[in-house]
Amino acid sequence: MPFEEKFHLRIPGPTPVPLRVQHAMNRPMIGHRSAECSRLVQKCSQRLQSVFGTRENVLIIAGSGTSALEAAVANTVAPGEEAVVVVTGAFGDRFAKIADRFGARVHRLDIPWGEACSPDALKSFLLSRPRVKAVFLTHCETSTGVLNPVRDLAQIVREHSDALVIVDGVSSVGGVPCEMDAWGIDIFVTGSQKALMLPPGLAFVAVGPRARKVIRQAEAPRFYLDLQAYQEQLEKETTPFTPAIAHLFGLEAALDMLDEEGLENVFARHRLMMEMTRAGIRALGLPLLAEDAVASPTVTAVRGTETIDATALQKELRRIGVVVASGQQHLKGKIFRIGHMGYCDPLDVLTLLSATETALHRLGKPVRWGAAVAAAEEVWSRV
Amino acid sequence: MPFEEKFHLRIPGPTPVPLRVQHAMNRPMIGHRSAECSRLVQKCSQRLQSVFGTRENVLIIAGSGTSALEAAVANTVAPGEEAVVVVTGAFGDRFAKIADRFGARVHRLDIPWGEACSPDALKSFLLSRPRVKAVFLTHCETSTGVLNPVRDLAQIVREHSDALVIVDGVSSVGGVPCEMDAWGIDIFVTGSQKALMLPPGLAFVAVGPRARKVIRQAEAPRFYLDLQAYQEQLEKETTPFTPAIAHLFGLEAALDMLDEEGLENVFARHRLMMEMTRAGIRALGLPLLAEDAVASPTVTAVRGTETIDATALQKELRRIGVVVASGQQHLKGKIFRIGHMGYCDPLDVLTLLSATETALHRLGKPVRWGAAVAAAEEVWSRV
Repeated sequence: MPFEEKFHLRIPGPTPVPLRVQHAMNRPMIGHRSAECSRLVQKCSQRLQSVFGTRENVLIIAGSGTSALEAAVANTVAPGEEAVVVVTGAFGDRFAKIADRFGARVHRLDIPWGEACSPDALKSFLLSRPRVKAVFLTHCETSTGVLNPVRDLAQIVREHSDALVIVDGVSSVGGVPCEMDAWGIDIFVTGSQKALMLPPGLAFVAVGPRARKVIRQAEAPRFYLDLQAYQEQLEKETTPFTPAIAHLFGLEAALDMLDEEGLENVFARHRLMMEMTRAGIRALGLPLLAEDAVASPTVTAVRGTETIDATALQKELRRIGVVVASGQQHLKGKIFRIGHMGYCDPLDVLTLLSATETALHRLGKPVRWGAAVAAAEEVWSRV
Repeated sequence: MPFEEKFHLRIPGPTPVPLRVQHAMNRPMIGHRSAECSRLVQKCSQRLQSVFGTRENVLIIAGSGTSALEAAVANTVAPGEEAVVVVTGAFGDRFAKIADRFGARVHRLDIPWGEACSPDALKSFLLSRPRVKAVFLTHCETSTGVLNPVRDLAQIVREHSDALVIVDGVSSVGGVPCEMDAWGIDIFVTGSQKALMLPPGLAFVAVGPRARKVIRQAEAPRFYLDLQAYQEQLEKETTPFTPAIAHLFGLEAALDMLDEEGLENVFARHRLMMEMTRAGIRALGLPLLAEDAVASPTVTAVRGTETIDATALQKELRRIGVVVASGQQHLKGKIFRIGHMGYCDPLDVLTLLSATETALHRLGKPVRWGAAVAAAEEVWSRV
């Protein structure tokens, strides 16, 4: 590579940060208790509602996405209470680990990685566990590129229990249609470094009325991630602790960009990038981990084959200047993952695909030049 | 003010971010599991050792300073165990609240706000409480501008108990000499947005060997702030959760700046700015909250008088373009606080003092023009 720093970051987060967001983050620092910061917090919280599909409060935490997952657990499930965690990959697994660590009685509904949880599977699992206080779901499972049918799953929970519906939207919110209120989600969390086009360091927790009540009465030990404190301070247009102010400056710019493109167009772009990626990868003869029906618009997992080692291909791509992610846990070495979310467009997908052709060739694999690119261009041409 | 965004941020954090740090933060995003990110995490952690005065690991958390305070509590004191918290202001109070929330039996040693805790006071308090597992201290109490004699206090704890010495260094580390190892501190925490010249959003926890042992055996529920996980991952040159990567880019630049100036010079600059500020404020007839012997080099609290309202003066300063902070809790309305730390120099102090002269005049108070500036210049001339 001629330019060390000129690489294409195509992992499923952190994602590239637009120049406009960077410039916004460079605004002169302000006091965290100033009127200006109050306006910023209040405005960001309010403007985030549309990406979550909610009219409820969106709480803003300085932390990684995992801090939001923990907040969603520690504020809702008391030690000894029962929770269902639907595990479709590494991030469902993380939800289960957090709930376990906080003393919940965790019922794991384990789904083979690469598949989605079906409403029927959840229904029968839930019906035999009537004392469950909360059901934890993953919208887009970043480790497999599967988009779980959260709308249908939430409906099942609402119809057959009083449990809260708590959803990890870390790699979906901002890239995929999310209708928190219409779908009956009680808590919906995400992070800054995925479809929202910011550096990592901000986490968001949208809280509906049923969850608010539970949070108010929760007694588990928590302080930094006490959502009741964030609720109360948001009503005073501030945060309980110093917010990540530069990130909030950037968030305003990122939300401007989403507004200008229009959320419907943003979602269509992500879906297009998914379809182009899948068509291109298929044209190279590489298998996809997830089936079309459950594929996520934000991330695509590609399997290695008997002759093509996933890790070797990932490393060759890195040498050419394209960074993709490896598999996690038992999928390590078996897949690589392509992020196509946030500040990413169809041309980036074509770049990725052509680099993949070159990488395969350099690994000594037979490649029909342009095959992946052609397939993706053809998909694009149909829009 | 002619320029809305041209103000002087002189609160005790967040502090102004140098252009050079901003530029570093604008580097293209990288993957959080890349070799480059490992180097970054490992390098930042290692380079932070000198500002803490330690050869121990410095753990890096994406979060506000309070996340580090909580980590220091939740990983060391089990529910029901006893802890002493020395409270000299709002941040000692926060330590006590966190310890209380996590189920510790908290013994508060309350010191009047504006004073430091004396070694003798701590000694007698500690001797009558032999089962204490940890003693929580605040180095610079940001709410009062008092620098507690942490070296002497730590020595008392070490001589008279087996308790861990846990210190909040949020507004001291990087601005004031800190000798964690030599002073016998077991856990020393700070945040990014004070003397380290970064935006808020990173927290640091330096952990000594005695604390490491306690952390390894701790069983209190914690996940995002589980320091054992940060320890183990740091040994693999990474973090358990996605770090605030842009902040780490910035941190490298900030540490470069501290290296180039030389830590001894950095500390001397902070001491000079304190002395200039105090001389200037005194020349205006305004009383200082803390006595010289315990005054912090990073923040100065100024009392209002019978004729000069602290809040009115703060607001007038804001109109002129200088932002100072109000008092907290029972000092609200009675003091204002000047931050002189991080990216701040003697000229900034002169600007602040001349603005204060003008603000007093605009409030109809008698002012001898130039009095504060002259007193500060005279201090500066003696260096």
